[in-house]
Amino acid sequence: TQPTISYQCIYVTVFEQEHFQGKCLEFTSECCNIHNCGLDNIRSIRVESGAWVGFEHHDFQGQQFVLERGEYPNWEAYSGSLSYHNERFMSLRPIYCASHHSSRMMIFEGENFTGRSTELCDDYPSLRAMGWFTPEVGSMHVQCGAFVCYEYPGYRGQQYIMECQRHSGDYQHWRNWGSHCQTPKIQSIRRIRH
Amino acid sequence: TQPTISYQCIYVTVFEQEHFQGKCLEFTSECCNIHNCGLDNIRSIRVESGAWVGFEHHDFQGQQFVLERGEYPNWEAYSGSLSYHNERFMSLRPIYCASHHSSRMMIFEGENFTGRSTELCDDYPSLRAMGWFTPEVGSMHVQCGAFVCYEYPGYRGQQYIMECQRHSGDYQHWRNWGSHCQTPKIQSIRRIRH
Repeated sequence: TQPTISYQCIYVTVFEQEHFQGKCLEFTSECCNIHNCGLDNIRSIRVESGAWVGFEHHDFQGQQFVLERGEYPNWEAYSGSLSYHNERFMSLRPIYCASHHSSRMMIFEGENFTGRSTELCDDYPSLRAMGWFTPEVGSMHVQCGAFVCYEYPGYRGQQYIMECQRHSGDYQHWRNWGSHCQTPKIQSIRRIRH
Repeated sequence: TQPTISYQCIYVTVFEQEHFQGKCLEFTSECCNIHNCGLDNIRSIRVESGAWVGFEHHDFQGQQFVLERGEYPNWEAYSGSLSYHNERFMSLRPIYCASHHSSRMMIFEGENFTGRSTELCDDYPSLRAMGWFTPEVGSMHVQCGAFVCYEYPGYRGQQYIMECQRHSGDYQHWRNWGSHCQTPKIQSIRRIRH
């Protein structure tokens, strides 16, 4: 069971059409199915405060899109470079962040926290450049804050949001990283800030 | 006139086919036209050391792709989310970087270094979150090192590589950011490291 999220002063405005057109709604907390709010789809987004994650499907399933303050006029703007193109955005929720400098996680070579490991507490556009020896990660444990992990270097490809306050911060296997995850490939990781 | 680039121990391996297949070549310095090296196109890349920038067209023209250490098995892996899809990669060169902590640049509201300004010396997934008041930047001056600027928050969209050691670090107008640039939209910026 997930704790109820209730932040003061965080909100996001979503639009049914691209370029901030059409029916729009404001959210200050999670929405598990935008159809229930009378929207057909989300095609543009203005994040006014907080950090959010959008999902391809309802109930927080499918591809994940980290959303920080700013404007996303269309699907390309928030999706990143993805292995499959499906312009759907059906649910969203705030991300539990920590203060920037206290964010901390461990990555492990093998699943279930086995094999070689290293601690991360910064942003890493290339795990390889900071000494990680393979383009894959076997398992992860988030000790504090929230991170976004990416398939490719330079914060590209599929995104996986990892939070200390969900699953006790434990991500034992790539099957736990998200319902859209199909490989253990992770080549860049960064902290998420409000 | 540009200084000759000559680093020790930096190299990149490029492949004519996806997934590191087909004809391959190693580069340790810039290549202004891969046709001259006997390659038809570049479809996958392994960056072994250094930071590089790839270009859509020969002579360092067109869309820019920042390439840090790691593996890029296909076009999606290095392109980012782009406003136009054109699977061409025709030239590449190393990026002049500074030590991570000395990288520094100024951004300005207006072109030609006018209007409100702020100094950047960190990574900023959302310029808005750090206090910048608009989704646009009018002009930029890189004082030290190299940065990559992105159209959208979270390091997404078109990429523009800005270097202290090119154009004296001066980027007066969005038309100087690259031949592919069509708007002053910049919503995230980060340092480039070796």
